[in-house]
Amino acid sequence: MNALLLVAHGSRRQQSNEEVRLLADKLKSRCGESFPIIHAGFLELAEPLIPDGLQKCIDDGASRVTVLPYFLNTGRHVAEDIPDIIDEFKRNSSVEINLTSHLGASEMMLDVLASVASE
Amino acid sequence: MNALLLVAHGSRRQQSNEEVRLLADKLKSRCGESFPIIHAGFLELAEPLIPDGLQKCIDDGASRVTVLPYFLNTGRHVAEDIPDIIDEFKRNSSVEINLTSHLGASEMMLDVLASVASE
Repeated sequence: MNALLLVAHGSRRQQSNEEVRLLADKLKSRCGESFPIIHAGFLELAEPLIPDGLQKCIDDGASRVTVLPYFLNTGRHVAEDIPDIIDEFKRNSSVEINLTSHLGASEMMLDVLASVASE
Repeated sequence: MNALLLVAHGSRRQQSNEEVRLLADKLKSRCGESFPIIHAGFLELAEPLIPDGLQKCIDDGASRVTVLPYFLNTGRHVAEDIPDIIDEFKRNSSVEINLTSHLGASEMMLDVLASVASE
């Protein structure tokens, strides 16, 4: 069973973290067929942290987890920290884990920006 | 003449700031008809800062500037800091300045996430 883990940075502001969790919930209605399991995970400052989020997916029955970094820029978090955490988790897990490119890398972002600009 | 100012947080990593400037350039090819003038601006840590970015738009001939916050979450920066800076600038300017909702508020973000997830 496929799972999706939406990974955000995490914030001291609980409202920001809650927004990410709500977004994961919205994605369930949108991508429920492709990903019957969807959770949010955080790099730091909020729970579940990425390894705990991966474990939640596995506990729910996932045999494959797709990790999607909810980040705009190609920073150290995207380039190093998240891949390192995934690699470390993989060493002790038999579940297939794939990391997508980060959100900001999508060519569709130009469509969104154009749409917001013309609001 | 309409201008668009794409406002990001700004980073100590010059590569991240450069990504935002490149995105503003890409938007020019995409939204050039609606916004003949497009610049990037930063809340902190990078140049031009927001007031300088607004001034660049005006120096280029803008009579109206649309400010688009390139942020994912509804944090203090989006809710308070950016509006405050815009309001302060408006006090000394006759140019019309409009602030859009932030990028993460767009319903289209679900489409982008669904697309990246299914890469």
